[in-house]
Amino acid sequence: MSIAWTSRYALRTKRVRSSEIRELLKITDQPGIISFAGGLPSPEAFPLQRFKDACHKVLTEQADHALQYGRTEGYEPLRDWIASNMSRYGIRAKLENVVITSGAQQALDLIGKLFIDRGDRVLVEAPTYLGALQAFNAYGAEYMSVPIDSDGLRTDLVEEPLRFSPKFMYVLPNFQNPAGTTLSEGRRHELVLLADKYGVPIIEDDPYGQLRYEGEHIPSMVVIDRENLRRDAGYSIGNVIYLGTFSKTVAPGLRLGWIVAPPDVLAKLVQLKQSTDLHTSTFTQHVAYEVVRDGFLDEHVKYIRKLYRERRDVMLRALARFFPPEVHWTRPQGGLFLWVTLPQTIDSHKILESAISQKVAFVPGNSFYANPVGPVDHHMRLNFSNATPELIEEGIRRLALAVESQLLTTYA
Amino acid sequence: MSIAWTSRYALRTKRVRSSEIRELLKITDQPGIISFAGGLPSPEAFPLQRFKDACHKVLTEQADHALQYGRTEGYEPLRDWIASNMSRYGIRAKLENVVITSGAQQALDLIGKLFIDRGDRVLVEAPTYLGALQAFNAYGAEYMSVPIDSDGLRTDLVEEPLRFSPKFMYVLPNFQNPAGTTLSEGRRHELVLLADKYGVPIIEDDPYGQLRYEGEHIPSMVVIDRENLRRDAGYSIGNVIYLGTFSKTVAPGLRLGWIVAPPDVLAKLVQLKQSTDLHTSTFTQHVAYEVVRDGFLDEHVKYIRKLYRERRDVMLRALARFFPPEVHWTRPQGGLFLWVTLPQTIDSHKILESAISQKVAFVPGNSFYANPVGPVDHHMRLNFSNATPELIEEGIRRLALAVESQLLTTYA
Repeated sequence: MSIAWTSRYALRTKRVRSSEIRELLKITDQPGIISFAGGLPSPEAFPLQRFKDACHKVLTEQADHALQYGRTEGYEPLRDWIASNMSRYGIRAKLENVVITSGAQQALDLIGKLFIDRGDRVLVEAPTYLGALQAFNAYGAEYMSVPIDSDGLRTDLVEEPLRFSPKFMYVLPNFQNPAGTTLSEGRRHELVLLADKYGVPIIEDDPYGQLRYEGEHIPSMVVIDRENLRRDAGYSIGNVIYLGTFSKTVAPGLRLGWIVAPPDVLAKLVQLKQSTDLHTSTFTQHVAYEVVRDGFLDEHVKYIRKLYRERRDVMLRALARFFPPEVHWTRPQGGLFLWVTLPQTIDSHKILESAISQKVAFVPGNSFYANPVGPVDHHMRLNFSNATPELIEEGIRRLALAVESQLLTTYA
Repeated sequence: MSIAWTSRYALRTKRVRSSEIRELLKITDQPGIISFAGGLPSPEAFPLQRFKDACHKVLTEQADHALQYGRTEGYEPLRDWIASNMSRYGIRAKLENVVITSGAQQALDLIGKLFIDRGDRVLVEAPTYLGALQAFNAYGAEYMSVPIDSDGLRTDLVEEPLRFSPKFMYVLPNFQNPAGTTLSEGRRHELVLLADKYGVPIIEDDPYGQLRYEGEHIPSMVVIDRENLRRDAGYSIGNVIYLGTFSKTVAPGLRLGWIVAPPDVLAKLVQLKQSTDLHTSTFTQHVAYEVVRDGFLDEHVKYIRKLYRERRDVMLRALARFFPPEVHWTRPQGGLFLWVTLPQTIDSHKILESAISQKVAFVPGNSFYANPVGPVDHHMRLNFSNATPELIEEGIRRLALAVESQLLTTYA
């Protein structure tokens, strides 16, 4: 097989590039590495006994349906549970507004498939979730990147790019991946009004919303949007599509997420989903429903918050203790990540090399930008959910050594 | 929400149309309907005890990995099992040639995503699997349809369309959906040579290959292709991508299929899969591996063959007994479907109306054609795997009444 398919059949690359993170994760899978690189929940956060009971129940009482083909929209009791669970956050969705996806990643893929033709523009945060960029890249998206600050997306810089008619704005409002920042309530209101003014929908991706460790819950943009809609006759339409997931609260291995959208958009997404994978596993949907129901998830999320809050605090304390004063970082109120900003001349890739030799890993910041920024990549994303407190402290200590040595080299 | 998103945001339809079958299945879900419409395995074919044991083992011994994020390529022991299991059919795949997909439907989606740009041509059988058409439609495929006969795809009619450089040929060689026909060994050899001559790869979709009820196994095209490759120095490359699935032998609710391809193609498919859903559920992959391993699937497939062979025979006998002599049907050697051909003036949609009023359902033939054929849809696809023998006999009796009355109306 000497001739490659890629040349014989001229397979287009469609700008598919293997993510730097994935390559990195292959290294960090090795035993002995303290990894702040992935975005992995802690296995301690998997409710094992509940899973065992759920599997037993599903296979004993519901096997004919749980192992059979199912509806593309998803398993109705689970959709219904999601709709009513979200209502406590003010999101008034009904069963008809919810479709189950194979993880929130599939939601991003379906949204790309529906909205984006080659060359279409998409407005994204800088930095933003890498997986979203990969999903939209596959459909040929071009990006308009708007920077974030400690209050999230800079809404004062959004109106100009909106004049260029992007197909949508992709926004992570809560404890953003990678930066850990949260979009302020005022900016949420602004963004929702801008969406309506310019006719550019918002894709509100909220994988971490329930993992708040301090501060008050801020209403989702989908809620603000619907309230505007009810109040104001001049406001034409709901402009927000909301994405949720069980990956951070139940288990990512299930690959279960969901989309909340107006019925006419949802109908199109369902048609596209049908052609993509027929439906998400009925088995995992039945199991997840038996896991989360009857108030279990509420209690379980409390446990996860406690677990991750402690790890965040350990990481923040270790950073303050070990890192040099020229280095800054965000203090996320929730989620899984924090974002380190080095002096502008310091290359985080060089730090990574040295860090890996010391058996600690993170992801350099450039992976998270749709459009290249600056001559030097001087950011690092650190995950604090996966390692134990002891390993977090030790990892930050080692990382500080790598940072220090790079600072010395650069200033020498 | 008076203005619809579809108009405000001018959402392109991308030729997404809800499948006639899905609409039909909503009717046939109703209790009391005898349905030959779906392609559902029988729940009796789900190995429940094995599933219970597998879930228990996975959650007791492997939960940290089985509930966590995993590799895009799939769970290695499962990929390895698939590779070695296929070797008994002469398919010499290694771990590196196998990627796990979220059902074979996702394999079709990824292949569409990799190969097809809007307006690209694809060569398909007429009739062919509807889900493949839906997957390729989403990427803007145009079709060149080549008819089948009792020996499968008419290879004598393939060379002319190949001159128009389709991106690939999509072929179901064994007990084809919808027609139940099998591609003869001679034609497989012809097709593989044509693929190499014209540089047009074959997508060999084989969901039913293991469900053979009579006759001898015929080598897969991927095997013939590799043999040619080994024998003949002038033969440039392996030209076949092979698709398999656990949906018909284990359970469709798991959504587990796989692609076998040369490593360079597989690498691109994996990159696209990563952007589509990160990876297929690690949980279902772990469970499936524990279900199929240690020879279990071989024994279980024997049981399924016996179960479905009986149902096929019951349906064939009932057709012979109740259907009028003007009507013909295929005698599939395996799989889940047979294909009924009515006199050319008889509209199967009218028969369906009358059939549904008698609480029996099937799918009219037109759904399975990429390009419209003939003025009247005079075909019916009948599934024989899902209903019990008693219901099959009763359903065919009722269907015969609907056919008879339509024959009388038309000839009156």
